[in-house]
Amino acid sequence: MQTPWEHRFAHRTEGMKSSFIRELLKVTDQPDMISFGGGFPAAEIFPIDRVRAACDKVLTEKGRKALQYTTTEGYAPLREWVARDAKKMGINISLDNILITTGSQQALDFVGRIFINRGDRVLTESPTYLGAIQAWNAYGPHYVTVDTDEDGMLTDQLEQLVATNIKFMYVLPNFQNPMGVTLSHTRRKQIVEIANRHGVPIVEDDPYGKLLFEGEPIPPLCVIDEEYHSNQDGCYSGNVIYTSTLSKILAPGLRIGWVIAPPQVNKKMVQAKQGADLQSSTFDQYVAYELVKDEWLNEHIELIKKVYKERRDAMLNAFEKYMPEGTTWTKPAGGLFLWLRLPDGCDTVKLFPMAVEEKVAYVPGEPFYPNGGPTNTMRMNVSASKPEVIDEGVRRLANIVRRCTMPAIRYPRTRE
Amino acid sequence: MQTPWEHRFAHRTEGMKSSFIRELLKVTDQPDMISFGGGFPAAEIFPIDRVRAACDKVLTEKGRKALQYTTTEGYAPLREWVARDAKKMGINISLDNILITTGSQQALDFVGRIFINRGDRVLTESPTYLGAIQAWNAYGPHYVTVDTDEDGMLTDQLEQLVATNIKFMYVLPNFQNPMGVTLSHTRRKQIVEIANRHGVPIVEDDPYGKLLFEGEPIPPLCVIDEEYHSNQDGCYSGNVIYTSTLSKILAPGLRIGWVIAPPQVNKKMVQAKQGADLQSSTFDQYVAYELVKDEWLNEHIELIKKVYKERRDAMLNAFEKYMPEGTTWTKPAGGLFLWLRLPDGCDTVKLFPMAVEEKVAYVPGEPFYPNGGPTNTMRMNVSASKPEVIDEGVRRLANIVRRCTMPAIRYPRTRE
Repeated sequence: MQTPWEHRFAHRTEGMKSSFIRELLKVTDQPDMISFGGGFPAAEIFPIDRVRAACDKVLTEKGRKALQYTTTEGYAPLREWVARDAKKMGINISLDNILITTGSQQALDFVGRIFINRGDRVLTESPTYLGAIQAWNAYGPHYVTVDTDEDGMLTDQLEQLVATNIKFMYVLPNFQNPMGVTLSHTRRKQIVEIANRHGVPIVEDDPYGKLLFEGEPIPPLCVIDEEYHSNQDGCYSGNVIYTSTLSKILAPGLRIGWVIAPPQVNKKMVQAKQGADLQSSTFDQYVAYELVKDEWLNEHIELIKKVYKERRDAMLNAFEKYMPEGTTWTKPAGGLFLWLRLPDGCDTVKLFPMAVEEKVAYVPGEPFYPNGGPTNTMRMNVSASKPEVIDEGVRRLANIVRRCTMPAIRYPRTRE
Repeated sequence: MQTPWEHRFAHRTEGMKSSFIRELLKVTDQPDMISFGGGFPAAEIFPIDRVRAACDKVLTEKGRKALQYTTTEGYAPLREWVARDAKKMGINISLDNILITTGSQQALDFVGRIFINRGDRVLTESPTYLGAIQAWNAYGPHYVTVDTDEDGMLTDQLEQLVATNIKFMYVLPNFQNPMGVTLSHTRRKQIVEIANRHGVPIVEDDPYGKLLFEGEPIPPLCVIDEEYHSNQDGCYSGNVIYTSTLSKILAPGLRIGWVIAPPQVNKKMVQAKQGADLQSSTFDQYVAYELVKDEWLNEHIELIKKVYKERRDAMLNAFEKYMPEGTTWTKPAGGLFLWLRLPDGCDTVKLFPMAVEEKVAYVPGEPFYPNGGPTNTMRMNVSASKPEVIDEGVRRLANIVRRCTMPAIRYPRTRE
């Protein structure tokens, strides 16, 4: 039955759906639940005392400014920090390249807003970040997908696909959400080269890059891309739109992200932001700047890496210990997620209620495939649970998985 | 010459322009400048010590939660406060009616996102809030405008216009930005009645309503509208989408706004927010809740009203004292703005560089008319300058105005 409102909604709302993950997390918010579902950082290592000291300093020294409106582009010292941080990654940028956003999610929304006409072809990994799909669906793109393996997005078919009128390609190079895999240096170079040759922009989403547990960091695509373009007066004018965030290295509740883009794109982003919310929280930007501006942040990142690495290892060990044969998983070198593939025939959406009953939760993998995909995958978060909890949670989960591998009783027939 | 990026931008970006006001404010950010341009609250009465105490309390008692992700809908206690506040205005709402947004600007963007198809007819006051026009232009509406006088939006032609396939009408009932006028009770009732009869939703934008200097408050349109609808279990299911903010009664830098909408609309708003930025700052929501939850907020609002009333009076007095004959202005009963109309033939855009030279700034009025309008108007902010500064600023401005009323030397011929 049509409500009085439905006929009034704009066509684009048909593409807008409630976030599967966010709805699912409501179910899992119960005592005794072990949740590998969310992408929550470990709250027990949030630098609460540091944040308190930063709030104090900001309010004492600059209270009037920190509580007032500021420029849409963002608090200048924080943008300068973004530029210094980019320089450490290997790229020279100027303030004209930088916009502070409300998390990198907002940067993705703006990418959709300024680039996607209904029906435009957008190239993504498969699976890819669900939040990007959700942001862009309102703009009505057609997704062209490329499979992803342990070395990230496959490049062997890329050139053919890129030649088919692609508006932009979307890449998560480091510890990709949802799979946790890292795009190899060779493939990064191939992707950047192909993108430049065909004049197709790259949107590089890098929220986890600093959380590398082992091995050497690989340059981001924007750094590789800089070789293809003349940098004018320290201003990046290349082919990559890069976004990152403080959510995973400081605190997601502050909602501080940023986007680095060529000046013409940044100008459009700023216009989009003016219309969208005028600016991100002045106060959070001031507080965040106090926290990131000196060496302490690096120490804190080392702590996060240490804790998450232990948890990743705990999960890998628990998989080895408990998971039935035929189950495979990725072995991320960093970040917050692992990707589990169950034996053929196991459906992780159908298993989900059984898991919740056993007080363990995950995110079924199918929604991460923009055009649909296998139903026997799941995303597992490693950051939010302690090692012993991870062990117990994986044990419970393995019992569920084992049930689905026994054909006769694969799924309960009826459920009340 | 086309840049390599321009041909890639989506069609909707053609409607996106840099905010005239935000660009203008960059010019006026000079020492000795007296600016009546921005809509800045008075920073010298920001409750800095209270904010510091709130940060301290939040971090001490709930630090882990306050720095973590929270639900898209917003921090539940803050939403409960919105419900209590609405009840004081005279309307029963439930949490299913409420979404916390990044300022009320974001609520306006979401209105555009979920309602406006390209070419849809949107009815607005003329002049109206520039930020709404800017947010909606990306969605390509056609504006149908209604003139505004000292009693707000005119209603005598409204019925005819509303019958012409209007998607929604947009009303700022209290101390309207830019004119400072208040929509009369009689007209509010007429507008709500017409809107319900024709099934046209009302978007009610009320950032200043609590800043009433004198006289009795008039019920918001959503309260009047409730009579037309059955309220189910305390959930509002009427025809009005109401938005407000803490920006003008607490601090704009925290970027806390909210929207009250029927549940079907709220659900779409939540989906829009998930795609747009997942959620507003958890930390700012926790801190804001500590500040608004008890009676202190009312005391603080009394202080703001006292200060702004003095400033409004100072400006009205200065107009009387300095402005040449033929200049008229509104006499707002609250809020942050006055509207000045210069003698015919004075062009406030052309006068602007002369004013800046004399170290005084305002916002030219023409951009506030969605379909164009008179060029001899300007918006004057009363909240950001002390009475003696207002007097001096108006004196300078009156000298400029006087120049433009002398025909022979109306504008300088050439300017270097």
